[in-house]
Formats: sequence, C-alpha cells, structure tokens
Amino acid sequence: METPAIPQHVFDAAILLSPQDSHTYTGHTHPAYANMVGPFGGAIAATLLNAVATHPERLGDPLSLTVHYAAPIAEGEFTVQARAMRTNRSTQHWLVELLQAGEVAAYATMVTAVRRDTWGTTVASFPQVPSADSIALVPTPARLPWVDRYEMRFVEGELRITDSEPETMDDADGNSSLTRLWIRDHPPRPLDFQSLSAICDAFFPRIFVYRPKRVPIGTVALTTYFHVDAAQLAEVGTDPLLGVAQATHFGKGFFEQQAEVWSGQGVLLATSHQVVYYKE
Amino acid sequence: METPAIPQHVFDAAILLSPQDSHTYTGHTHPAYANMVGPFGGAIAATLLNAVATHPERLGDPLSLTVHYAAPIAEGEFTVQARAMRTNRSTQHWLVELLQAGEVAAYATMVTAVRRDTWGTTVASFPQVPSADSIALVPTPARLPWVDRYEMRFVEGELRITDSEPETMDDADGNSSLTRLWIRDHPPRPLDFQSLSAICDAFFPRIFVYRPKRVPIGTVALTTYFHVDAAQLAEVGTDPLLGVAQATHFGKGFFEQQAEVWSGQGVLLATSHQVVYYKE
Repeated sequence: METPAIPQHVFDAAILLSPQDSHTYTGHTHPAYANMVGPFGGAIAATLLNAVATHPERLGDPLSLTVHYAAPIAEGEFTVQARAMRTNRSTQHWLVELLQAGEVAAYATMVTAVRRDTWGTTVASFPQVPSADSIALVPTPARLPWVDRYEMRFVEGELRITDSEPETMDDADGNSSLTRLWIRDHPPRPLDFQSLSAICDAFFPRIFVYRPKRVPIGTVALTTYFHVDAAQLAEVGTDPLLGVAQATHFGKGFFEQQAEVWSGQGVLLATSHQVVYYKE
Repeated sequence: METPAIPQHVFDAAILLSPQDSHTYTGHTHPAYANMVGPFGGAIAATLLNAVATHPERLGDPLSLTVHYAAPIAEGEFTVQARAMRTNRSTQHWLVELLQAGEVAAYATMVTAVRRDTWGTTVASFPQVPSADSIALVPTPARLPWVDRYEMRFVEGELRITDSEPETMDDADGNSSLTRLWIRDHPPRPLDFQSLSAICDAFFPRIFVYRPKRVPIGTVALTTYFHVDAAQLAEVGTDPLLGVAQATHFGKGFFEQQAEVWSGQGVLLATSHQVVYYKE
C-alpha cells in the first residue's frame, strides 16, 4: 500500500533550514508569516529551535528556549549557526545565532533534555472555558499575514485597537490585559515543539489588549519552557490549544507578558514569558 | 570632611571580577556563598550580570538576564568572557560565558536598555502581608552557607524538608508551592541589579515547599526581567524586599518556578522564572 503524499504545511516551509555544514544552515523569511515589520517572532523562534531539533548532535527534547530579537530581520535569506555549548548525561545546552549581512540579528539559547518518568503535578489552574467549537471564528482586527496562519477563538481579551484612533485612551481602573483563547495552526497541523514554540509568541502584545492606543512595539526577548516530551505533544495532534496570556507590568518603555498553553485535555504544554518594547 | 571608609560587603567580594582584557575577566567562587554542591546559583547569576554591568561598552540598565547552569562549577577560579552581540540605539544584547578548565560551565544572555519615562501600570498584585518587622527571624532548615547571607522572614511557605526523613510523602491535595517572604542581604546592603539578580534565585526550590522529600535538584536555566531602572533601585536602599514564589508544573524530571520581587512600597522590581531538574 502506498503512503499518500502529505502536502507540506506552510509552517514547515517557513522554518525550513538547509544544512551547509555540521553547524550552519540557511533559511529564508516566508511571506505567509510576515508581521508589521519583518517576520513574525514566533516563526523566528521556531526556526532557531528547528536548528537544534534537526541537529545530528541533539540530545533529548526541547526543555527551554530563550530568543533574543536583537535587530530587525529583513525579508530574505539568513544564516543560522547552532552549537552545543555543553553536553551532559541527560541535558544539553545550546547557542543558536541568526545572521544577516554578517551581523547577529537574533540569537537563542536552549536546553534539550532526556525526560524521564517521575512524580509530577500541575500547580497552575486549567481554565474552565467554553469548548472551542462553541466559539465562533471571527476575524481579529490584527490584519497581518501571520495572524491568518492561526485559528483563534477568543473566550475573552481580544485586541482593543481598531482602525480608527480612539477618542479617549480609556486608561481607567478595571482595564485587563488577560486573554483566554483557543488557538491552533491554520490549516491545522499536528503539534510539535516547532509549532508550539511559535504559538507561544502568537499572543498579541498585551498593551493592545489593555489599552486601545496604537504604538510601536517589539518583543526584545522571549523564554519558553516545555513541560511535556515529544510523545505527549504528539498525542495532542491537531486539536485546538487553550492559551492564557497576561501582563505583569508596563513601565519605562518595556512590559512583560506571560502565557500558558494547555491541551484541551488539561495538560500544561508550555509556559512562556517575554519582555516587549513599547514607545509611549 | 573625609568620606568614611565603607567596608566591602561579602557579596561584592563574591561577584568581584578582575579584568584581563577588554572582554575577559577572572573571578573566584566565595565560601560565603557556597551551596550544597558548588556556588549558589544566584551568586553566579550576579557575577555574569556584573561582567556586563562593569563593561566599558555597556549601554543602559539591565532589562533581562537569562542564565544557563550548564555544568557543575568547581570551587576556585573561573574565567568570564562578555561580548555585545548587537548594539542598537537604546538596547544592547549580550552573551556572557563562564569557563573552567577550558569548558563552558555557565553562560548568560542579557539585554541592557536605556529606560525612558512612559505610561505604565502594574498588573500583578502587591501582596497584602504583615510588615517585615512584625515577623520573627527564625533559622530555616536549609543549613547552607549562602542561606546565611540572606535575612528571610517567612509569611508563608517555609521549607518542608527536615533532618529526619518523613514517614509519609504527604503528597495530598491541598499541598502548596507558594512562598511569601521578606528578604534582604545579610548584613544589609544597598540594592543594585547585582544583588537583585541574586535574590531572584534565593527562593528555595519549590519541590521542597510542596513536599517534604529530599531529592537531588539543580537549576538548569533562569530568566529574570528587571522592571525598574538604577535610580528606582537605589531608592530601595537596604529595606527588606517582598518576595513571592510559586511553581507552575512538576513533571518528567523538571519543574518551573516563578517569582516576583517587590519593594516594601509596592514597586514591582523584578520577575523571575526558572526550570529546575529533580531526581524523582
């Protein structure tokens, strides 16, 4: 029996890396994951993770990923260099650099680890929300190419920015930065560490949920921790994921936002934290 | 009028770096900050931050710090190399490596940034707890050199491990990983980014708060975001800080814990996240 050809998902095309030598790859930004300026940060995170995930020396599954968005990334080709900084018995520490025009435009550190069965428990609370299929799919006000690559069903906390500048800032007590939504790739794609690392950056900047004012923003650094191994991720398949995102603090030009990503069955898949520049 | 000589705090001795060339320093582990095995991770974090803080090319104040504890650090001398990966108009991205015997034992990435006055608000909640001076200072069960370098007044969530192995694991519903405590250097030392980065790692491993069993543990990677600039930190002086720490998930050999550090006046100074290895 022949295996039917599986059409490649556009996400795989976006994070594709071509090996040049044992530590060097070339990649290319993809128009389907374009952001306001340059590529969607989640696609860059996934690309850097992909350099480790496909590396012949890799030990175990991704455990942590920290990405520094050091400079704007131009549309077009880039070089990725990955090297193991230290390899232990069951953990491995990585540095991955993305270069354009000979300069570092982004870089990441990662830990990969062999996960073993141990005692465990989840302390964070799985949110009780309506099921994904009970929530209508409505277009968000964020009209950017990468946003169309995700199916987002908002339980609460949609973007407050609109095409018309608001008359007042509406920056009163009672504002919330909290979003809860069902999210998955569009079209659906079986979950892996690559797509999960991108989804962790798919929560809109909290400043646009908290207040309706459009200002320049940009993620400076992002850290994601993965709480499951590859087999547990594979069980999720193409099911929608439940995402929760909230800010902790906005001040002096930077804010932090935190996110949790759960499977529909209540398994905490990843937690993520990022610090974001904003203009005013 | 003569300035009186200020005796050096032992923390300054522990994080001291001697420049060798423009990017290379030598340092030395300090017995006062020894941990169960090797040095207290917070002292290593502060040492790596110190390499950037004292670097002649440094732009702005620390905004984020990610430390990878890649291998055990032996007592004795080490080399630290710091380099700016990318310098922008108001942000700078760093890589700092700590080497022993020619191998990377720890490394860090950092963002430093020029902080500017902007709109801001704190979303996280300042905990309502009894004042520091109303809480007795009692010795914790953690009898390690570095613990004596902190004045800790627990509101709730002390270590549950004791010298005698518990008869039962007591791993029932209702267990909590939450700690709230007042903390500062002992003896008191005016707060700066160095000491704050160490304090962010001074929250005991959550697994020992959640359950009473002694198991091998070790921080694998830690990320701290700083929410204030140097002037705001200086205002705190030697006042006790309010720390809040909690786990999100324990599973398959690793757990995550998150922490907030507040000034007594309710200013969120830093948030911190770490992933920790545990044996069973």
